[in-house]
Amino acid sequence: MNIFIIGIGLIGGSMAKDIKIHNPDATIYGIDINESHVNEALELQVIDKKATYNDLSIADIVIVSVPVDIMVLELPKVLDIVNDDAVVLDAGSTKSLLCKVVAEHPKRRNFLACHPIAGTEFSGPSAAINNLFRGKANIICEIEKTAFKLQEKALAIFQQLGMRIRYMNPEAHDKHIAYVSHLSHISSFMLGKTVIEKEKNERDIFDMAGSGFESTVRLAKSSPAMWTPIFNQNKEKVVEALEEYIQNLESFKKMIVEDDSDGIYDEMNNTNRIKEILNGIPLNKK
Amino acid sequence: MNIFIIGIGLIGGSMAKDIKIHNPDATIYGIDINESHVNEALELQVIDKKATYNDLSIADIVIVSVPVDIMVLELPKVLDIVNDDAVVLDAGSTKSLLCKVVAEHPKRRNFLACHPIAGTEFSGPSAAINNLFRGKANIICEIEKTAFKLQEKALAIFQQLGMRIRYMNPEAHDKHIAYVSHLSHISSFMLGKTVIEKEKNERDIFDMAGSGFESTVRLAKSSPAMWTPIFNQNKEKVVEALEEYIQNLESFKKMIVEDDSDGIYDEMNNTNRIKEILNGIPLNKK
Repeated sequence: MNIFIIGIGLIGGSMAKDIKIHNPDATIYGIDINESHVNEALELQVIDKKATYNDLSIADIVIVSVPVDIMVLELPKVLDIVNDDAVVLDAGSTKSLLCKVVAEHPKRRNFLACHPIAGTEFSGPSAAINNLFRGKANIICEIEKTAFKLQEKALAIFQQLGMRIRYMNPEAHDKHIAYVSHLSHISSFMLGKTVIEKEKNERDIFDMAGSGFESTVRLAKSSPAMWTPIFNQNKEKVVEALEEYIQNLESFKKMIVEDDSDGIYDEMNNTNRIKEILNGIPLNKK
Repeated sequence: MNIFIIGIGLIGGSMAKDIKIHNPDATIYGIDINESHVNEALELQVIDKKATYNDLSIADIVIVSVPVDIMVLELPKVLDIVNDDAVVLDAGSTKSLLCKVVAEHPKRRNFLACHPIAGTEFSGPSAAINNLFRGKANIICEIEKTAFKLQEKALAIFQQLGMRIRYMNPEAHDKHIAYVSHLSHISSFMLGKTVIEKEKNERDIFDMAGSGFESTVRLAKSSPAMWTPIFNQNKEKVVEALEEYIQNLESFKKMIVEDDSDGIYDEMNNTNRIKEILNGIPLNKK
């Protein structure tokens, strides 16, 4: 079995590692615009061989895990080259635009639109870890547009990786993920920014930061190259979520200004039920 | 040695556990307005004995770890009762008001104003854990107002607990902590609220949440009884931090609306240096 990974970072690399364990006879080929990433992946044995687009014709499975702005450009080219029995998967955090871009492609049936909800704040081949996807949700969009045998081939891999499959249309995906993922990243980045700006004049401030701050600001370590095009492609839904968030912050501020302790207490008390909700989320143990 | 803990929750309970390990001959007395907490703490061996304010006259060290609104009422009463050689510590997340409240107390010299920057999102005696304070900062305010021998007694305990001591005036403490702690809690609570409001109609949304969301929203599990009076007492500084945060979110939103990808990239890229800053923060390993 020939597996191609295009974009050998945290996601592509972690998939490669797990796939190799479950399929020791498979050959993992790596393609990356960043030559040093390919070499590093080879050294770390995340991939078995370097490859180029010319080699894609021998692929059984192609996993494209590149930033979503590159994805909409490259995925059609990949589909142009692969053979009829190859399944091409993506791992992007936006789905609507990508599904539109390939909608009329003659090899649309070879593509399965996926979003594995997994990751850490790290990036590059060295960030690849085993079992990143175990117990995590994998959102699959427009399953009906993928050839039945190729669906099967992809699902077998997801089962090996231990993922929980969820089916959703691209628009619903982009709307929901704006709240549970994209908004979290913005809230974290802007928290980091607000505190760093303060720190310019006050060097002592970070010595006072505890694990609570660390947790809330963790996502502000994420890759700008990955996240800029996500906010761009999911602009409408992200802006909607952001406006609701800002509105909630404004109301909370008003309650503090007006010494409305009952209101403040109730807001926090009502939100405490996030405890029960979060109990359903498998965490990264790394 | 007689150690009294008033308010046997996460902070008081965790201190009790570590103190007992380093001072096996000490007797840990517990006082809590919540009778079931005292009983639970006794069962869990977080404390050795139940006590009341009447017993405080035999105390060598009193640790008052109650919500900051209760603190400003109870601390003067505690000082009224303790003997001249007892040191009374607090663990509150605000310092200005408390220091004002006890400024003219005849036993001001028996009090040491502290803020150990440690915690988890859990509360109550069952949340008490060993080594919660190891490597963490402990902000001490107005050290010069505490009797020298009593400073020594308190610092010996903090050394046993492994804390890094930082001295700061109450106003500077409240200003800085508004950014690195109070603002994080509001950002997290409001993120939780925004997403929960969405979930009312969309039950599937949380199945899509990953570890990134979990991390960012972790502090929204925190105790409203503890946090409401903190925002109230540190109102001015919290509102200032919140306004800067909202302003940063508004600018980021504007860049998304205007498709300013370069601006978005730069904002995130600049904030990425939080990585290096956070490397200095010891994390809760629990």
